[in-house]
Amino acid sequence: MFSMKHFLSLKDFTKDEILHIVNISIDIKHSFLNGKKIQPYFKDKTLAMIFEKSSTRTRISFEIGAYQLGGMALFLSNKEIQLGRGESIKDTARVISSMADMIMIRTFEHSRLEEFSKFSNKPVINGLSNEYHPTQLIADYITMVECGIGMDDYNCKYKNLRKPVVCYIGDGNNMAHSWLMLASKLGFELRVATPKDFSVDSEILDLAIQFAKHSGAIIKMTNSPQEAAVNANVITTDTWISMGQESNKEYKIKQFSGFCVDSNIIKLGDDAIFLHCLPAYRGYEVTDDVIESKHSKVFLEAENRLHAHKGIITFLEEKNWKR
Amino acid sequence: MFSMKHFLSLKDFTKDEILHIVNISIDIKHSFLNGKKIQPYFKDKTLAMIFEKSSTRTRISFEIGAYQLGGMALFLSNKEIQLGRGESIKDTARVISSMADMIMIRTFEHSRLEEFSKFSNKPVINGLSNEYHPTQLIADYITMVECGIGMDDYNCKYKNLRKPVVCYIGDGNNMAHSWLMLASKLGFELRVATPKDFSVDSEILDLAIQFAKHSGAIIKMTNSPQEAAVNANVITTDTWISMGQESNKEYKIKQFSGFCVDSNIIKLGDDAIFLHCLPAYRGYEVTDDVIESKHSKVFLEAENRLHAHKGIITFLEEKNWKR
Amino acid sequence: MFSMKHFLSLKDFTKDEILHIVNISIDIKHSFLNGKKIQPYFKDKTLAMIFEKSSTRTRISFEIGAYQLGGMALFLSNKEIQLGRGESIKDTARVISSMADMIMIRTFEHSRLEEFSKFSNKPVINGLSNEYHPTQLIADYITMVECGIGMDDYNCKYKNLRKPVVCYIGDGNNMAHSWLMLASKLGFELRVATPKDFSVDSEILDLAIQFAKHSGAIIKMTNSPQEAAVNANVITTDTWISMGQESNKEYKIKQFSGFCVDSNIIKLGDDAIFLHCLPAYRGYEVTDDVIESKHSKVFLEAENRLHAHKGIITFLEEKNWKR
Repeated sequence: MFSMKHFLSLKDFTKDEILHIVNISIDIKHSFLNGKKIQPYFKDKTLAMIFEKSSTRTRISFEIGAYQLGGMALFLSNKEIQLGRGESIKDTARVISSMADMIMIRTFEHSRLEEFSKFSNKPVINGLSNEYHPTQLIADYITMVECGIGMDDYNCKYKNLRKPVVCYIGDGNNMAHSWLMLASKLGFELRVATPKDFSVDSEILDLAIQFAKHSGAIIKMTNSPQEAAVNANVITTDTWISMGQESNKEYKIKQFSGFCVDSNIIKLGDDAIFLHCLPAYRGYEVTDDVIESKHSKVFLEAENRLHAHKGIITFLEEKNWKR
Repeated sequence: MFSMKHFLSLKDFTKDEILHIVNISIDIKHSFLNGKKIQPYFKDKTLAMIFEKSSTRTRISFEIGAYQLGGMALFLSNKEIQLGRGESIKDTARVISSMADMIMIRTFEHSRLEEFSKFSNKPVINGLSNEYHPTQLIADYITMVECGIGMDDYNCKYKNLRKPVVCYIGDGNNMAHSWLMLASKLGFELRVATPKDFSVDSEILDLAIQFAKHSGAIIKMTNSPQEAAVNANVITTDTWISMGQESNKEYKIKQFSGFCVDSNIIKLGDDAIFLHCLPAYRGYEVTDDVIESKHSKVFLEAENRLHAHKGIITFLEEKNWKR
Repeated sequence: MFSMKHFLSLKDFTKDEILHIVNISIDIKHSFLNGKKIQPYFKDKTLAMIFEKSSTRTRISFEIGAYQLGGMALFLSNKEIQLGRGESIKDTARVISSMADMIMIRTFEHSRLEEFSKFSNKPVINGLSNEYHPTQLIADYITMVECGIGMDDYNCKYKNLRKPVVCYIGDGNNMAHSWLMLASKLGFELRVATPKDFSVDSEILDLAIQFAKHSGAIIKMTNSPQEAAVNANVITTDTWISMGQESNKEYKIKQFSGFCVDSNIIKLGDDAIFLHCLPAYRGYEVTDDVIESKHSKVFLEAENRLHAHKGIITFLEEKNWKR
């Protein structure tokens, strides 16, 4: 029986599939930057984008990405559509997937995405949920590879890569969860430093530990940013105050004292690159001198979302239709 | 003198024109689903869509429809444009129609559409007004024909159709009015069952009766859903609580007691299909078991809006420019 | 060193450059109206449009314009993006300009545009700031030329033009400032009549006087609409109450008493055309009989925004990349 392949979390993909998506993305980026015509893998097709939470970067990169692949993206904000309000998610999924060729959803609970995907007869992409942010991780990994860091055991233009030792400092949120999935699937070392009351979801951690047994990944949880940073070649963080969480801002800032990525943290790393999915709040999760330093690859990382999204769309087209 | 042909209400069209639009839509759908290149009837053209009331289905189907015909649609919400507020409808019509090639408007009073059309030098499509919803009816009729129900006297791929006997149960609103126009123009039987205080507009009913004299349509108004449903081959309804009417919700629900389309109603019909323009509120105007039953064609109907809109755009291009 | 050319204010351009943009726009318009294929100067490219203030005309003309040039425009409202809120303008500029090929911004303080442009590695267009509205002036000048008014010393399809004598009546706002730049750069006569407390910005006036010394422009400031209108061949105004200024509406209306462009004002001109960037408030800055008279070219002017914007995009592509 044919089962539609969606892109909801890296947990649903094998190492080979993840690296294949990365490879496609890098190929597309190179063709694009060299002025070669990109293969229009999404020619005359349409991507419906449902944004229950707004986002500049995700919006622009998917809308331009779909266009550069020969297709079109359609933007639906929470003013036009609220999943499960007025109409059941089940009905909305059936209606939209009868018209559009692919659907990108940025929403709250991951279960909303799963419910939608269950009734959609077109591929669904997770553009961010409370639990996972897989499209960002593809962009992050592309950036790592471009900076000479990555798994050296696959067929890629980039060779002699330094094996990733990734240090994530901050909130145990969807970004932390997504790094857990990437590391445990690909088999590299990940240290996650969070304040005591902001650790990652234990079920997701268990899943990562399980994957790690198979892949050989090393997963370390700590409350010490310094411990996590030593000899890391990738140091990354995320905003402490995500959209909709502004109410407990003061409390959180207090709890995250000592978790700012500053030049002392960077110095602990092994010629580390600094990543951040943006927007960045200087003086909170990162200092201005770090984000503007030569270690920082955050704007390359942002640009790579465009290419990552083209890779993901292409992969889903290939996986679902071109067999 | 050249008079611009708009698509505001089925009352402005002949039987032949309506069936021609349906035929175009079906042809486009078949080409599309068979992977044939659609003739780009709207190549390089632009559709401005003005949504004073929001709508997922109308928005997506017109935006994707215009794109699949080779053109582009531009979405204006009531945040960007409010007809007659700030600027007169007359001025807005002249400005927008000097830039876009076609205009779709979803609004409140039908008179706003008429005012706009009067000053527009490009074709205007009614994407829903308080009085009429003609684009939905084209999609509904396509769905009927695909299910073997329709007028058998025109040149169409579908033959040996059962003559429509349509039963509309619910509010005497724009959907009821639009069914009155379709039935009275095409010449089939329509029974409209509404609660006493929610009957259709009497002027529109008079118009339908007048058209029926010419077409041979049978138009019946009743307050009994059962009476309306007997031997019908199409049973349809609409939400009781349209957008912006949430205030008198409790009152309406009480008044519409007994007007829910349940399996008993469906059983009265003659192997009837069930249609609903969505969103559906299960337990109110329709039961869950009916909308999920084999009688229900509501998701086919939703998908057909995409093809109907392509048919309407193509018809207007043909009618206004290709003579 | 390569310095990106943006389109922020006419003050940054030479007379030749301004007339070149006008010429490009007119050429594109003629090709378009004659059904000739426009050269796709923006083929497969993307324009990100940031609207911190909404606008129907600017939105539609840029979105359709980019499309007619072979590209795509992406609409970001202040719901999706607020420059400098949440993320610094510097970061937003770097991120967006790493994905889109050109950026149009409608904002408040002109300094926000300048900050964005400084960090953007793609051309930026001012779609309206508190200080300047340069895209409108290109459309206005095209309209003048089409009506036989313009500088007669450049290589253009239109010959034997009447030299412009422009009378601006109303608020000393971004439209007044933009006329000051156009007149002082091209070298024609401009009279600006404002109420005493609503005169133009003195620094911008000084700049215009300085440019006028070089170009031979005659710049006159007055508080008398009649004095400004005598023998003018272009009479123009703007709304007194711009978006966001509704609070002091009553006060402003009182102060602008006597500054309404009525038929008596028009009669003082020399067979003058009437221009208005719209929306127009009849009975305030202009009477209904003037805006609907044969003198009025306001709808031609509105349509010309579409062609002007295509000219500006094409000019920036040519200037920045095709050398």
